[in-house]
Amino acid sequence: MGARKPPAGKEKAKPHGRKEVAGSIVKVAGALFTTISGRRRPLLKFPQRSLNNVSYTPQKGFFELGKREVERTLTVNTVKTFAQTLRMMSLSKELVDTDDIATKREAYYVSKNWEDARFDEQPESDAVMEDIEALFRVNREQLGFIPEEKGGEIAGKLVIVDKDRETGKTLRIDCTKFGSGAYSIPISVEHLEFETDARFILAIETAGMFQRLVKHNYWKPARCILVSMGGVPTRACRRFIRRLSDEKRLPVYVFVDCDPYGIANIYRTLKVGSGNAAHVNEFFCVPQARFLGITPRDIVDYKLPTHPLKDVDVKRAYDAIKNDPFFNHHKEWKSAIAMLLDMGVRAEQQALAKHGLNYVIDEYLPYKLSHAGEFLP
Amino acid sequence: MGARKPPAGKEKAKPHGRKEVAGSIVKVAGALFTTISGRRRPLLKFPQRSLNNVSYTPQKGFFELGKREVERTLTVNTVKTFAQTLRMMSLSKELVDTDDIATKREAYYVSKNWEDARFDEQPESDAVMEDIEALFRVNREQLGFIPEEKGGEIAGKLVIVDKDRETGKTLRIDCTKFGSGAYSIPISVEHLEFETDARFILAIETAGMFQRLVKHNYWKPARCILVSMGGVPTRACRRFIRRLSDEKRLPVYVFVDCDPYGIANIYRTLKVGSGNAAHVNEFFCVPQARFLGITPRDIVDYKLPTHPLKDVDVKRAYDAIKNDPFFNHHKEWKSAIAMLLDMGVRAEQQALAKHGLNYVIDEYLPYKLSHAGEFLP
Repeated sequence: MGARKPPAGKEKAKPHGRKEVAGSIVKVAGALFTTISGRRRPLLKFPQRSLNNVSYTPQKGFFELGKREVERTLTVNTVKTFAQTLRMMSLSKELVDTDDIATKREAYYVSKNWEDARFDEQPESDAVMEDIEALFRVNREQLGFIPEEKGGEIAGKLVIVDKDRETGKTLRIDCTKFGSGAYSIPISVEHLEFETDARFILAIETAGMFQRLVKHNYWKPARCILVSMGGVPTRACRRFIRRLSDEKRLPVYVFVDCDPYGIANIYRTLKVGSGNAAHVNEFFCVPQARFLGITPRDIVDYKLPTHPLKDVDVKRAYDAIKNDPFFNHHKEWKSAIAMLLDMGVRAEQQALAKHGLNYVIDEYLPYKLSHAGEFLP
Repeated sequence: MGARKPPAGKEKAKPHGRKEVAGSIVKVAGALFTTISGRRRPLLKFPQRSLNNVSYTPQKGFFELGKREVERTLTVNTVKTFAQTLRMMSLSKELVDTDDIATKREAYYVSKNWEDARFDEQPESDAVMEDIEALFRVNREQLGFIPEEKGGEIAGKLVIVDKDRETGKTLRIDCTKFGSGAYSIPISVEHLEFETDARFILAIETAGMFQRLVKHNYWKPARCILVSMGGVPTRACRRFIRRLSDEKRLPVYVFVDCDPYGIANIYRTLKVGSGNAAHVNEFFCVPQARFLGITPRDIVDYKLPTHPLKDVDVKRAYDAIKNDPFFNHHKEWKSAIAMLLDMGVRAEQQALAKHGLNYVIDEYLPYKLSHAGEFLP
């Protein structure tokens, strides 16, 4: 079992707690105040958030933000954005101090009471929020800002430790006790702690496959934690897997369909992050993830029923081989994807049902897990 | 509070347990066997599943299947479908007997081992499954067939009673003890039981609003159960709310965006079901649901920030007034939608944040709940 190996993507920058974030905001605001009081022109420096300012090393395992910075100073042209940035920092401080949250959309609506500093469109407020996120080198959730969407369910050998916000009482949530249901990952997961004696985390693409493994208590004999991603995992789901894996030193195995979407969208986003959010990939990817299947090789070995690749699948596969630094880097992936293109077909994880509904539990997963060293990177 | 009122949509046909379903299958199969043994031609009768064979009465509250039937007899042309229907019935019997499940897709893949009776495309197997569902007048989940998609989260004053499938031990899942997380509704909910002293169920459109109410333990003072629908509710989510509401006689209040999608898609699907699945609306709609808001009137009263209606919104709104028997029936809805079209704008539930992030908790919801008699039907 790969459980003995330490995870590859150990977190460098330990995310800050609420006090540290509030402290950083006060520090930046204080410096601005001093500058202004001295009748000098205030200045804010942000990391440049673009692919020009990003580097990729397999050792780090994610697109990393470089050192280039852009400056925002106070001029006639920038006065509104400057004011908005300060008000957004102030809102963040308030959220952090009161242990409250705001979605991006709520933050936009809150600004409607900022008079001349109000945002006219949400993309403007989102951009300012991302500037602040990059400025403090934390993630949005730590600033009190949460995404709109939820996603990700958990079942199996895990106790999640949370707190009742009012009473401060510790809540121990035992994911072995949900029956046919599951624990739904909250939008922000920074405050959660974990207790587990599981050997690995199994991240699953479809809700149907997850439900089969839950129904049969697969996690019991396999001693694992099951995660339903429900397609491309949300930020919260990725962050949850990452924190759990880092803190408990658990390997992460990913079980998806064998098609360019499962490989190049779901798996890749979980593992190395996404291109257009490089300043937060550090927190939101799981570099230690490995590909359990379904692989193109499995289609042959398990004689799986297939569907022809559509044009969009073919395009996605070529894009992955040609333009994606992650697939580009790994020869094994290049030849696996070439094999898929060559066969011209795709197969779903549920295609294993051809050999019986529980073949996946009785045969496929045990065989794969005893050969974890052979997983695609 | 509406809690004193009995719910309007009390279930007529109590769904069958596993034994009853297995018994029905054996009975139908036995009759076929007798016919064939007597060298007569076997015959299956299915309710006709189309809008021609559907009636709507507000008293029942859902599109109800009529008495027209189609016959499937054994001929040279129908031999394959006939065989497939019997094999699918047999698969269902096996699932029910072993307390197992299969998604529609898995059932399709299982057929790949049925030799000449295998399905070539999944829509064929789906159609046969729906025939059987209609034949036995139960829902797919009771036959052991489950949907692919999951959805719906729960927090608040509810204990869900489930069973450990292996040990048979009762599991009491207390939804007040999940901290910032939530209970994720399983794909099939027929076997769940409920304990609650809540006064009502609040079904919420967005994950962001749900998270706000969870974060602030809103369910505690309000004594309610919070449901996150995450857009248009899945079958399992609708069925969960329906069973909970029926069995505990709880009113259901629906809190969505004020736009044609929130009204005509999310709310209407939850309340009266959908047009193309008339044979199961009886189980999957919540006729007792009432519309808590946001209403077009609220946009004016609460001076909410708005966005202009898009063309697709306008089309959807006109469709609702003109072609939808539900909106057609209720004058209050017709004038509310006309008012929205007249204003030419829509507003999101999170727009209440203009008055402060927790205005929704401190002002909006308490005021609304003390005027539940005025909710749109």
